[in-house]
Amino acid sequence: MPVRYTPPAAADLLPVPGVTLGTAAAKIKSWARDDVLLVAFDPGTVAAGVFTQNRFCAAPVIVCRRHLGDGGSRVRALIVNAGNANAGTGASGIADADATCAAVAVALGCKPREVLPFSTGVIMEPLPVAKVVAALPAAKAALAPDRWLDAVRAIMTTDTVPKGASRRVVVGGAPVTVTGIAKGSGMIHPNMATMLSFVATDAALSGGVLATLAREIADVSFNCATVDGDTSTNDSFVIAATGRAPLATIERIDDPRLAPIRAAMTEVATTLAQAIVRDGEGATKFITIAVEHGRDNDECRRIALGIAHSPLVKTAFFASDPNLGRIVCAIGNAAAADLDPSRVSFWLDDVQVVADGGRAQAYREEDGQRVMKQPEITVRVALGRGDSSATVWTCDFSHDYVSINADYRS
Amino acid sequence: MPVRYTPPAAADLLPVPGVTLGTAAAKIKSWARDDVLLVAFDPGTVAAGVFTQNRFCAAPVIVCRRHLGDGGSRVRALIVNAGNANAGTGASGIADADATCAAVAVALGCKPREVLPFSTGVIMEPLPVAKVVAALPAAKAALAPDRWLDAVRAIMTTDTVPKGASRRVVVGGAPVTVTGIAKGSGMIHPNMATMLSFVATDAALSGGVLATLAREIADVSFNCATVDGDTSTNDSFVIAATGRAPLATIERIDDPRLAPIRAAMTEVATTLAQAIVRDGEGATKFITIAVEHGRDNDECRRIALGIAHSPLVKTAFFASDPNLGRIVCAIGNAAAADLDPSRVSFWLDDVQVVADGGRAQAYREEDGQRVMKQPEITVRVALGRGDSSATVWTCDFSHDYVSINADYRS
Repeated sequence: MPVRYTPPAAADLLPVPGVTLGTAAAKIKSWARDDVLLVAFDPGTVAAGVFTQNRFCAAPVIVCRRHLGDGGSRVRALIVNAGNANAGTGASGIADADATCAAVAVALGCKPREVLPFSTGVIMEPLPVAKVVAALPAAKAALAPDRWLDAVRAIMTTDTVPKGASRRVVVGGAPVTVTGIAKGSGMIHPNMATMLSFVATDAALSGGVLATLAREIADVSFNCATVDGDTSTNDSFVIAATGRAPLATIERIDDPRLAPIRAAMTEVATTLAQAIVRDGEGATKFITIAVEHGRDNDECRRIALGIAHSPLVKTAFFASDPNLGRIVCAIGNAAAADLDPSRVSFWLDDVQVVADGGRAQAYREEDGQRVMKQPEITVRVALGRGDSSATVWTCDFSHDYVSINADYRS
Repeated sequence: MPVRYTPPAAADLLPVPGVTLGTAAAKIKSWARDDVLLVAFDPGTVAAGVFTQNRFCAAPVIVCRRHLGDGGSRVRALIVNAGNANAGTGASGIADADATCAAVAVALGCKPREVLPFSTGVIMEPLPVAKVVAALPAAKAALAPDRWLDAVRAIMTTDTVPKGASRRVVVGGAPVTVTGIAKGSGMIHPNMATMLSFVATDAALSGGVLATLAREIADVSFNCATVDGDTSTNDSFVIAATGRAPLATIERIDDPRLAPIRAAMTEVATTLAQAIVRDGEGATKFITIAVEHGRDNDECRRIALGIAHSPLVKTAFFASDPNLGRIVCAIGNAAAADLDPSRVSFWLDDVQVVADGGRAQAYREEDGQRVMKQPEITVRVALGRGDSSATVWTCDFSHDYVSINADYRS
């Protein structure tokens, strides 16, 4: 069960004019569920995305990058399968992703390069293209604007709940909708590989604006989320703009009409990113780590991730044990050689634990214990040497994490 | 229980002329065991060491560095306590370490700066100096040359077995003894903090030779061991040479007489480093990760550690599940941006899993499974672009790891 996250009902996920979604059962694994998702966009839709930095990136990631280019591109469909990641599959994996796009193009009457492919599942096994293609007619027949919840259900793997969010804003008198979905229960599941997220709006945004937004929004949402510190081979975040809202195209990133849309997209993406951490494998606690007063953003982020990735810190949170030397140690490991420990302080929520590099005079273990027992905790670290800051979200490390990852394939 | 490691018997740890060891119960925690170790060296003994790179290094580490200087120094005693790390204790922690050294100097009739202090245990609590000082007379009374096994027992924390090794070599007709001990059951226990290792020889080695040896030997032994990827606040590796063997002082690192002594010290340190991993918290498997044909040593080491630190790889080893996409993913995460995945291959022992970036044609899951079930496994990765290589040793990630670290303080 996720930590303080209520999954959306179908009605919570607002249709986005210009977007329809359909799912079907391709039986990519021997399961009784839909496992293929087709998303169709009206002509004129533009999309951009950001993708995994893993060197062994999956074939669909390579094809998505090629189809989107650097500045966003016209897109007519997304095709997504669960159960097989099409990663570590070499040249034949790319041919399989291309073949899938070609089949979708035939079905929808568009060009293959207007189709973006995504896969999530086991690594190093060939994609069963024939099964995906055979499921396309059923997925196409099911296309409807109000099927966002079905859509995210079809691409879940170890997720325990579907994750989605919507916002509606008014821009120049016109209503604009933003709806997004995400799957993933860790930054990495190299077997059930992947974090995938799709966000659509009916505003009209140029490719350049979308490409900039994709990077900026990923940096403050998905790139702040970590469950186990790795990056999957398939991570993809794609935003699409259909242009169906009664609003002229936004061509510049500093157009004032973009502000409310950008804010809505950022809120949706942040909600989804946090939902992934709240549904992290085995998670029992949701932890925000904020590092402040650092020399630069990189330093703050490196230390925040150092704390977030320490198995000893994570098991201490699981145990609700204010074993705070573990956090001190993680800071010391991640810090630059010239960090002065005697200027470092940190807090658990409102409780100051360390002042000037040592145990805070007023700190009492029972205060730490009280905070550690909560399902949601903020660790705030002050480095005492600058104005930069960074925040990451993570979860604890439980027996269930080991069980889920040791037992998954058996 | 450690993975394929038989702890030494008392008689296996050879006395080193010029070294005596005594232990006593200071009751630093409420336990019924000796928890203070005093090691006394004959006049003329020289020592050097390498210490944690953690920015929050413990007070005794700061004092050791000051006493040893860069090139090694004359040393008459080591004083070690378990149960309290004297880390995260600020200026008063340094005063406490200094006070301990001063008390030992009085007891043994030497200078305070000829005493090296070490602590291992809980972080961020003041060292109970009075208890350590009160135990010194008993520890001094117990000093004897054949107490190496008692010595290592007195400094154990989560270790399940004592770790020690000896070698005897003949140099220019003279017998030279090397004996070492180590404690630690992970690279980091920021609560039970620390890896400590002491190696002594009766050869006469100059401070400069010892300082060079300490760095070189640490690099091929302790620096290749990782349990959970962190570095404790207290890690210390100290080598001491008493000069009691009938052999003139070795002043130069290229003196041919040094070769057998260096080899013996390296063997002792490697045995101890591997013993720490074999006794890693919750370990059920010992895993050697060798990365070859890389551009440089840094690249190979970064990728080897990337594999060794991935919780998903470690849980797959625990499950004996040849879930090998996880290793591919870890390589992809740790690799430089210009690594060509299509040149990467890897093997589990003799079984080739990946060839040229994809699943090896001949690979069968049952072969992977056979290797994964063994208690000792080698992962060999070939990057296909150079002559460099690096090896690290690690262990798997089990339910017991979570239990040990979640339950420790309660």
